[in-house]
Amino acid sequence: MFDHFQPSDIKKYTRDELNVLCDHLRETIKDTVLNCGGHLASNLGVVELTVALHYCFDFPQDKIVFDVGHQCYAHKILSGRYDAFSTLRQKGGLSGFPKREESEYDCYNTGHAGTSVSAALGIAKARDLKRENYNVIALIGDGSFNNGLVYEALNSLKILKTRILIILNDNGMSISPTVGGMHAFLSDIKKQASVQDVPLFEHFGLRYVGVRDANNLDEMIDSMEQVKELLKRESVILHVVSQKGRGYRFCEEHPADTHGVPPCNFIKTGEYGQVLGTVLSDLASERENIVAVTAAMTDGLGLNGFFSQYPERAFDVGICEEHACVLCTSLAASGMKPYYVIYSTFLQRAYDEIIVDACSMDLPVVFCIDRGGISGADGETHQGVFDLSYLKPIPNLTVFVPKDQAEFVLALKKSVDFPHPLAIRYPRESKVIFNQNDFAWGSWEILEQADSDVAVLAVGERMLSLAKHIFAQLKQGGKPFTIINARFVKPLDTSMLDSIAAKTIITLEDNMLLGGFGESVAAYYCNTEKKVYPFAYQDRFIPQGSVAALMKENGVDEEEIRSLIVDCSERNE
Amino acid sequence: MFDHFQPSDIKKYTRDELNVLCDHLRETIKDTVLNCGGHLASNLGVVELTVALHYCFDFPQDKIVFDVGHQCYAHKILSGRYDAFSTLRQKGGLSGFPKREESEYDCYNTGHAGTSVSAALGIAKARDLKRENYNVIALIGDGSFNNGLVYEALNSLKILKTRILIILNDNGMSISPTVGGMHAFLSDIKKQASVQDVPLFEHFGLRYVGVRDANNLDEMIDSMEQVKELLKRESVILHVVSQKGRGYRFCEEHPADTHGVPPCNFIKTGEYGQVLGTVLSDLASERENIVAVTAAMTDGLGLNGFFSQYPERAFDVGICEEHACVLCTSLAASGMKPYYVIYSTFLQRAYDEIIVDACSMDLPVVFCIDRGGISGADGETHQGVFDLSYLKPIPNLTVFVPKDQAEFVLALKKSVDFPHPLAIRYPRESKVIFNQNDFAWGSWEILEQADSDVAVLAVGERMLSLAKHIFAQLKQGGKPFTIINARFVKPLDTSMLDSIAAKTIITLEDNMLLGGFGESVAAYYCNTEKKVYPFAYQDRFIPQGSVAALMKENGVDEEEIRSLIVDCSERNE
Repeated sequence: MFDHFQPSDIKKYTRDELNVLCDHLRETIKDTVLNCGGHLASNLGVVELTVALHYCFDFPQDKIVFDVGHQCYAHKILSGRYDAFSTLRQKGGLSGFPKREESEYDCYNTGHAGTSVSAALGIAKARDLKRENYNVIALIGDGSFNNGLVYEALNSLKILKTRILIILNDNGMSISPTVGGMHAFLSDIKKQASVQDVPLFEHFGLRYVGVRDANNLDEMIDSMEQVKELLKRESVILHVVSQKGRGYRFCEEHPADTHGVPPCNFIKTGEYGQVLGTVLSDLASERENIVAVTAAMTDGLGLNGFFSQYPERAFDVGICEEHACVLCTSLAASGMKPYYVIYSTFLQRAYDEIIVDACSMDLPVVFCIDRGGISGADGETHQGVFDLSYLKPIPNLTVFVPKDQAEFVLALKKSVDFPHPLAIRYPRESKVIFNQNDFAWGSWEILEQADSDVAVLAVGERMLSLAKHIFAQLKQGGKPFTIINARFVKPLDTSMLDSIAAKTIITLEDNMLLGGFGESVAAYYCNTEKKVYPFAYQDRFIPQGSVAALMKENGVDEEEIRSLIVDCSERNE
Repeated sequence: MFDHFQPSDIKKYTRDELNVLCDHLRETIKDTVLNCGGHLASNLGVVELTVALHYCFDFPQDKIVFDVGHQCYAHKILSGRYDAFSTLRQKGGLSGFPKREESEYDCYNTGHAGTSVSAALGIAKARDLKRENYNVIALIGDGSFNNGLVYEALNSLKILKTRILIILNDNGMSISPTVGGMHAFLSDIKKQASVQDVPLFEHFGLRYVGVRDANNLDEMIDSMEQVKELLKRESVILHVVSQKGRGYRFCEEHPADTHGVPPCNFIKTGEYGQVLGTVLSDLASERENIVAVTAAMTDGLGLNGFFSQYPERAFDVGICEEHACVLCTSLAASGMKPYYVIYSTFLQRAYDEIIVDACSMDLPVVFCIDRGGISGADGETHQGVFDLSYLKPIPNLTVFVPKDQAEFVLALKKSVDFPHPLAIRYPRESKVIFNQNDFAWGSWEILEQADSDVAVLAVGERMLSLAKHIFAQLKQGGKPFTIINARFVKPLDTSMLDSIAAKTIITLEDNMLLGGFGESVAAYYCNTEKKVYPFAYQDRFIPQGSVAALMKENGVDEEEIRSLIVDCSERNE
């Protein structure tokens, strides 16, 4: 069906043909995601919605912004990317998210929740100012609708005096089930008429239209046509109720587990998140003041067990990263010991609150930062490569990166009594255990001591593994070097820095070069004779790909590091 | 009246005495603020409200969180800080914001908008978990109520299953008049009964009570008693309508201008914001695609003229820093040229959007960052000393710091055609003009060339003034040095770095040492013979005080820099 498919073909289809098209889309998405990995259930739920959109609106002249982007696969297939779809999330292939660079049908890149309404407003306002004429649509799920950014955008609709269509795709799920007051509000509306007065939305300047079964193509198309007419005069919120995972029974029954799925051939190694969950539950049994806070991602973070064991002390506040942070700091200000567990890339949302709330009050919140470093197939918007840089300048904050899961467990245990804000940063998966020594706060550790002019200071498991790997190769050739586990990015272990005899220092980190650990070390030695060679990621956004390939291509290249060590060793011989 | 005043005295007062107390508070606040500077109109508006709070509740056992903190002066005076009140905002004196370190009556520090409801929730939840019993109150203005963080907190009230009192102090002003859909919604409620069903708040789990004249003490106390009863069973939102600046006619008539006032003896020098406003208006007359976006602060930023001249292209979206950023990026994605004008400290709120929206899409947004560097009397929460560090690691972003207002004007003019994201960072005031040369993007400038072994690389007007000042002193003693205007913090001017003959490099910046410009320079030279001495702020929060004193105390000390230059010059002679 898609072999000679042109984006404009869809307009000529009969309703029956459109239904067949939906089936084809569903199969294509399912087969591809099971092969490549990606967001499955969310994309299956919006097939009819997407077909109705492409049937009723005129893309790319009309513009659509996908919130987060977990529901853009059908759109990609319908907008001329069927042939490329098998490369989804692969290195050099189609992105799993909307990408302006990829197609004129994608007008705005997304990846983090809640930006779509703001973005639609900006695009619509630009249209007005340029006296152009087209429709602008934000498609947003009910999970993202909890995010404060959406509220800020809704609040300014009247100020901006423009028209947009907001499609609120309500499947009752964030990644976990959607929670909170807005969810209750929407549930209440759903029970009522499909066109009704909703005072809140009216005050925001939005006409309300509801669709009770967004997986019914006829209903969807009829509503879309109606909305298109309304949109000529006013802004509209089209509230559609869809089923996440629709058409694939396993997904329908397990929408949270199948939100994002790995490829079939994915080998799951030990995850830091699982360790976190187990240890935190153990600690909570001893310490009544321990609480855990997340922003809509208990499962991916390893906290399912904690949430079922300690429901009173576990808070999932929805996709509200800022609020989750302030909740933690205020709990800490009142004597609790909060663990804020979050992906590195999403913690960026709470940056101001980390500075002003957690650290300026010096409160003992523990930030458990998962997916630190390169995260892989999600691409630019999801790499956790900025955190060491943006956390470093914040006073009162200690930044710890464990060398392996044993050290991670130790740090978690010790964190219970640590009286200041603490960031513990780790990648998703773990592959090795180096040793199980206790440590003092702020201290580094010598993993390999060699009588050599080269010392490698490596941060975290990935970098220490790389250093060890090179060490094993060079040791045989008689060129061993010192390896230091630089587990505290902040504070630096200055007594160890002072004691390093080697003339050449190499730093390795899974983070941007600018503002990172290597710069700290370079600055520490900046008025000595020592030479420092920092290896970290170059100043560009890192696209999708495998962790190993991306590390190599972006500035942490095994070959290059080995050559440098060899050169330095020989130079000093 | 306050001479032997104890916090508990208020409980024994008659209503008449309480009214006299209000008058006294108002006079004290007015006199002190006119002398010390501070937030005037906002504090005058909540005098009766604060007296009612202290009359009805039992502080410090009960807890109150002041949103932003622009309305805590009466509370400070009533809670045992009358004697110290004359030291308001002075070095070592009382803070203009709530401070835990200052009094047990302040349970949570604030300074940035929108955190109070989250914080009250955390404190209440901790109370529940510890099986304690007291009331927790968030006092928030209608301006802050637009912030997305508040919505995130409201949304989680039901999830957290706890009880708080939210007092929404509605004076119709943010700093500028409050704007947007939520304001319309509240205006509508205000017209109705004082106890009514408000479905939105009900879904959030909040009982609504209204007070139509919060400057009427009787009405305020009666409502407060009623609310206190309700609070035993459920969460309440007490919506009070007050008059900003109440009781001081000039304030009542000019609430925006008297929100924050400088001390009487304040000498206003040339402000960068005024220059920005003038230049941007000129540019906008030539370029139709220029738009300006702010988050509730047109006046302090110098944009009043632009807003009246180009109302269609000027957007004040309220205290919504994240949304303002995405609005800019989407406008830019659609061909407009947006200038996002904001204080440095508040830009922290939009960090994720700067990375993901502006920079990963490489969109030509100009961030005009006012109050960069130490900002003075507002203290820890308002210093603009993190921006160079947190902006540096973001790819595609150029970070420019003008040496004076002439260069600022040039940069603004050139920015119109600059096709990438650009940050222009400047302090509030300007005192000198060095010269008026054109520049190329990414290039630095030699301000003083000397045949010396020392080169000083200084960022921005304050640091260049300092360097010039020291230069003038040492030149007479025959120890001149090279001064370089390092106007681009990113990218570095590497050809100039390569060409510097001096063996000793000194860097000066109005920013944290960690992650800042000095570290970049240190890292650039890290495998050469050059020695680098970075001067910047040490790793601690910077309290209130004068700019000059704070610079000196926190790591940029004229004396120390001069000695170093002298030492290095002599060593190499």
